[in-house]
Amino acid sequence: MKAELLTIGDELLIGQVSNTNSVWMAQQLNAIGVWVNQITTVSDEKQSIIKAMDEALQRADIVIITGGLGPTKDDVTKLALCHYFKVGLKKEEAVIQFIKTNFLKRGISFLPVHESQALILENSELLFNNNGTAPGMWINHQGKIVVCLPGVPFEMKGIMRNEVLPRLTSQFNLPFILHKTLVVLGMPESDVADKIADVEDNLPEHIKLAYLPNFGMVRVRLSGIGVDESILKQEIEQYFLDIQSMLPSSNIAATDDLKLEEIVGLLLTSKKQSLAIAESCSGGYISHLITSVPGSSDYFVGSLIAYSYQIKMEILGVNQQTLLEYGAVSEACVKEMVMGIKNKFGSDFAISTTGIAGPGGATPDKPVGTVWIAVAGPQGLKTRKIIGNGERMNVIERTALVALDMLRCMILET
Amino acid sequence: MKAELLTIGDELLIGQVSNTNSVWMAQQLNAIGVWVNQITTVSDEKQSIIKAMDEALQRADIVIITGGLGPTKDDVTKLALCHYFKVGLKKEEAVIQFIKTNFLKRGISFLPVHESQALILENSELLFNNNGTAPGMWINHQGKIVVCLPGVPFEMKGIMRNEVLPRLTSQFNLPFILHKTLVVLGMPESDVADKIADVEDNLPEHIKLAYLPNFGMVRVRLSGIGVDESILKQEIEQYFLDIQSMLPSSNIAATDDLKLEEIVGLLLTSKKQSLAIAESCSGGYISHLITSVPGSSDYFVGSLIAYSYQIKMEILGVNQQTLLEYGAVSEACVKEMVMGIKNKFGSDFAISTTGIAGPGGATPDKPVGTVWIAVAGPQGLKTRKIIGNGERMNVIERTALVALDMLRCMILET
Repeated sequence: MKAELLTIGDELLIGQVSNTNSVWMAQQLNAIGVWVNQITTVSDEKQSIIKAMDEALQRADIVIITGGLGPTKDDVTKLALCHYFKVGLKKEEAVIQFIKTNFLKRGISFLPVHESQALILENSELLFNNNGTAPGMWINHQGKIVVCLPGVPFEMKGIMRNEVLPRLTSQFNLPFILHKTLVVLGMPESDVADKIADVEDNLPEHIKLAYLPNFGMVRVRLSGIGVDESILKQEIEQYFLDIQSMLPSSNIAATDDLKLEEIVGLLLTSKKQSLAIAESCSGGYISHLITSVPGSSDYFVGSLIAYSYQIKMEILGVNQQTLLEYGAVSEACVKEMVMGIKNKFGSDFAISTTGIAGPGGATPDKPVGTVWIAVAGPQGLKTRKIIGNGERMNVIERTALVALDMLRCMILET
Repeated sequence: MKAELLTIGDELLIGQVSNTNSVWMAQQLNAIGVWVNQITTVSDEKQSIIKAMDEALQRADIVIITGGLGPTKDDVTKLALCHYFKVGLKKEEAVIQFIKTNFLKRGISFLPVHESQALILENSELLFNNNGTAPGMWINHQGKIVVCLPGVPFEMKGIMRNEVLPRLTSQFNLPFILHKTLVVLGMPESDVADKIADVEDNLPEHIKLAYLPNFGMVRVRLSGIGVDESILKQEIEQYFLDIQSMLPSSNIAATDDLKLEEIVGLLLTSKKQSLAIAESCSGGYISHLITSVPGSSDYFVGSLIAYSYQIKMEILGVNQQTLLEYGAVSEACVKEMVMGIKNKFGSDFAISTTGIAGPGGATPDKPVGTVWIAVAGPQGLKTRKIIGNGERMNVIERTALVALDMLRCMILET
């Protein structure tokens, strides 16, 4: 059962927004055994939509379209589909009532333009939208399925959860798709591939191996498809164990597709240790990563984001002399920051960062991207200086990655 | 001059990663006058790549391919292209030397597999990769251009900046593409459309209007294409002013495609006012948004992320009695938090948040998603309770959006 996603909208083609819808949809579809074959983004233009639609239906059994269902003139998806299927529109009274009731509650007036929101394709079944005015549509076309959803993420997600996924699982006898990912740190992709070549060369047709490298981290993923879930699971587990046994255990950061903040969270939880953070240049990003993990309140005490000298001195207890002599971006300062937060917040471990995220703030001996990072634990502290390059967000992200990995290593050594 | 992006990789099709490469490439191409017509993502399979390649070349003048150039077996892009163009590979000595020198510096051994990285298509010109082992390729094919780049974001960006964009601007006489965006808050998309219908109905063929709604915010975008930059700019400016004059000024949050944190930053800068934040449930995300803006150190003093009761009491001065009587997720607590941070950090404005981001932590009268937000300024404080739904990250994002908009309104009223 092959599916294609067709996302419509110039905002995606000019890089104004990122296509997060297709990431989420692909995850959900994989989870019920539907393989996504292709993702296509086209303009809000009738002809582009019709052509892309036609091509997708030639390749796939299910085509899920998002975007272009709104009440405004740039929303042309329904027109394009009417043209493609040679059908007209029908009005859904239930949708009109829903919109009227909702608007009344929120004090919005019902305009003629909203009436058009209740029109769906004659050859379609209504997929009710609890979160907005644009309904979804389910079309059976010559043995293939076309689903049409609004592009606003939380509206699309609601209809997918309530309508689309249940219909797909009940109407089709779907296979199982399983993925298993090993997170490898501190080894280049080619070294990893070299070490596990024996497994890779002998994989059966229905199991694939992929490498996903980024910033000193390689995710190695096994993906399999099969009709018997337990057999498939067993097969993948075995290959996964084989791969693990061929790599140095110190380089294996996780045996699940975890982010570094999740790995750190699991380590802190299992060791019943707590964490506090003092951030300067990373501006709250490390704290945000840590607290984006459910259950982080069990080990995360709190953070101080200390942009000003005054806060660094008053709350973290950094010496004025240190700031005057070495500046805020210095090993001396990052050390005092990490011990300050650890003592003040009474945590077992602590992280501190101070640096120049840019684009302003550079000095002759401290270019943009210069960052000092410290981690402290029950057995002492470690510091590291990195010189990142690129834009502000790159510097911030790299700082967070290095800091979290330093913390990971320190927890493991403790 | 129409371009298409062809991104290759199963990690995109299973939703393991988001396609951030195409967002960045689309922005860069637009900036030099190249319109991106379609973005297609296909699997790491030879046949899928060949088919997508063939279709893209029928529609576009330039096809930029990313991904599948690595040294591992799941990297099949070069094989697919050799097959498509009916050519072999040639070895680039400069690439081998570069890899050897680099590996020597970093203490990595040069393996036979790396030799294959220096192979490029016979019909291509080398696009040197300063940041990795996989070179890019530039192919002239029957009057059309095919560019092939590695998928690792910082490697792709380096080659785009150093090689691809300069070649495109020097070899082609490109038009100008301009976008201008109005950020409208507190008005439904259909109301906005209704009010500006007169402008929209009379736009010339080369200027398009689009609406991008999300979470109580609508971005209205004019996009134009033309050969004379100053005429195009003038035209767009005029329509833009017309649109502005048709909407209530209080609903216009920005006349540029700014994020809310940028709008708040501009307001604080222009009024020479400072900001401090006390976050509980939002866990550093608001601080991260604020500090992601270059120059934020001019107005941002710092934040406290207070997950524990103890930190809320000790540093923010929240009364123990308040926590015992009303709990941390209460109006009483959020008020004390906002005044605590404002006084402690000596800022003009302050934000505080406390709530249940989930999935754990709910009580019978406080479901997951219950969040109290407070903002304080020179003239007092305001609070608001929201009940978000969905996943942890949704609750956090919605909290940040509401908090920043409350702050925006308070700064404007001060």
